[in-house]
Amino acid sequence: VSPPPNAFAASPLDRAAHLRRDAQWLAAALRAPQTRLVAIGAAKPLMREGGVLWLTPDQAPPGSSTVFLGVDHAGAAVFAVAAREAPEGGEFTELRAAAATLSSDDIAILGCAKSLLEWHGRHPFCAACGVATASAEAGWKRVCPACAAEHFPRVDPVVIMLASRGEYCLLGRQARFAPRVYSALAGYVEPGESAEEACARELMEEAGVVATRIRYHSTQPWPFPSSLMIGLLAEVESEALTIDYTELEDARWFSRAETRTILEGRHESVRCPPPLAIAHHLIAAWAFS
Amino acid sequence: VSPPPNAFAASPLDRAAHLRRDAQWLAAALRAPQTRLVAIGAAKPLMREGGVLWLTPDQAPPGSSTVFLGVDHAGAAVFAVAAREAPEGGEFTELRAAAATLSSDDIAILGCAKSLLEWHGRHPFCAACGVATASAEAGWKRVCPACAAEHFPRVDPVVIMLASRGEYCLLGRQARFAPRVYSALAGYVEPGESAEEACARELMEEAGVVATRIRYHSTQPWPFPSSLMIGLLAEVESEALTIDYTELEDARWFSRAETRTILEGRHESVRCPPPLAIAHHLIAAWAFS
Repeated sequence: VSPPPNAFAASPLDRAAHLRRDAQWLAAALRAPQTRLVAIGAAKPLMREGGVLWLTPDQAPPGSSTVFLGVDHAGAAVFAVAAREAPEGGEFTELRAAAATLSSDDIAILGCAKSLLEWHGRHPFCAACGVATASAEAGWKRVCPACAAEHFPRVDPVVIMLASRGEYCLLGRQARFAPRVYSALAGYVEPGESAEEACARELMEEAGVVATRIRYHSTQPWPFPSSLMIGLLAEVESEALTIDYTELEDARWFSRAETRTILEGRHESVRCPPPLAIAHHLIAAWAFS
Repeated sequence: VSPPPNAFAASPLDRAAHLRRDAQWLAAALRAPQTRLVAIGAAKPLMREGGVLWLTPDQAPPGSSTVFLGVDHAGAAVFAVAAREAPEGGEFTELRAAAATLSSDDIAILGCAKSLLEWHGRHPFCAACGVATASAEAGWKRVCPACAAEHFPRVDPVVIMLASRGEYCLLGRQARFAPRVYSALAGYVEPGESAEEACARELMEEAGVVATRIRYHSTQPWPFPSSLMIGLLAEVESEALTIDYTELEDARWFSRAETRTILEGRHESVRCPPPLAIAHHLIAAWAFS
């Protein structure tokens, strides 16, 4: 049985990628009253009390760039739109904080919206020749008017792995984490390595442990700003830790029983990431296996 | 038992990432006689008859940008260097063609070298502000002197999946493939979707089939120019195909027996990708399961 989808995955939208090039359809959709838009300001979605503040086309900031996210179950088009000022009754809210009040459907839609608009915001120029580029295909690429280079939204693969040795698992803490939070170790996949090699390399670099068996768990799109988390379970043979303190503030072994109390929020001093993060599910997959 | 590593993975080098910031160590390595460099010209590695034409530091083109790839088993540093002209006795050779004469170790090193130097070649300007950037950390990032933005080598996750239905698997053919070659379907993972969602979406978009079960096989770094191939095995419920002819020239069901003859090079009209490609191993995993 497959695990349930991770947060930010399982979008209810049909991406309908063939419509991204259909200028006529897109123009009509951006006039249709049933169309809804989520505004993103400074990488934060526009929220109202208790949920997303969806905009209709006539409420969208004029002239702002839009990205076509897909079509919902009712057949309505859904767009993301860049915004600067929040309208009356709305507030730009950090997505992790906002997620507590959102359905999994809306979390997936907002995550995709955030990743795409942040990518546009961070990549207005052509990396090949330095000229200002323009959005194309309903926001799914940028094209350079000078050298014709095409640039596509970036997705950065990251390995995140729960390392274990017998009845103990390894959790680490980065200085930027919230107080008391320990999590699975993680790192970017580099050019020229498989996910499994990246996993083994990161475990060695950050904690000095040797992976002997690596199993795939699941993947998660992670919109901070746009990673694909590749979740792995790694068995390691080393008990002694050599911690890279430039990456981690601490790393420790936790027993299976202790790990369960962490997951359940009952540990006296250590917390772990919430179910929004794939790390939570990796830890649970091991702790309750 | 894990499958053997895919081609381009399993590099024999220790990436020794901590040395990327050690200017003194790097400068010494770029003078040491045991250091070896692979030259890349127009995305092709420099080859001699039967193998890589490794250069010593004094043979490297002066002033060319280098990337530190790691340290080999003998403790020698290995770099990639951008080159324009092939020296006497050498020839820039397309990597897939060159791979036939290379060890798996050299294939992995050259793939990483190609991905990194191509990334530098395609990204000389800052996507955030348009100013020319400079290589930093031994070639593992580029930094903008104007806005201080940091840019990291891009790795694009791609799902590649062998779809099957009972005793039949689905192979497709793109117009750009070599004659008679059919392969597993594939596509880029987009922002806001898991690998499994990307797999199901691509199968629906390209062939009109519904995935009911998706299993992970392995990953492969693929240096054309810099993808992370995520290999999946997908069971689908649909027999009828609705082929997207903008993506595929053809797609067909092949029986398990027929697929085996394709893998063995004995099929009368159809070939599949060579063992260099993860597609070959996905097809074999199903055909011989």
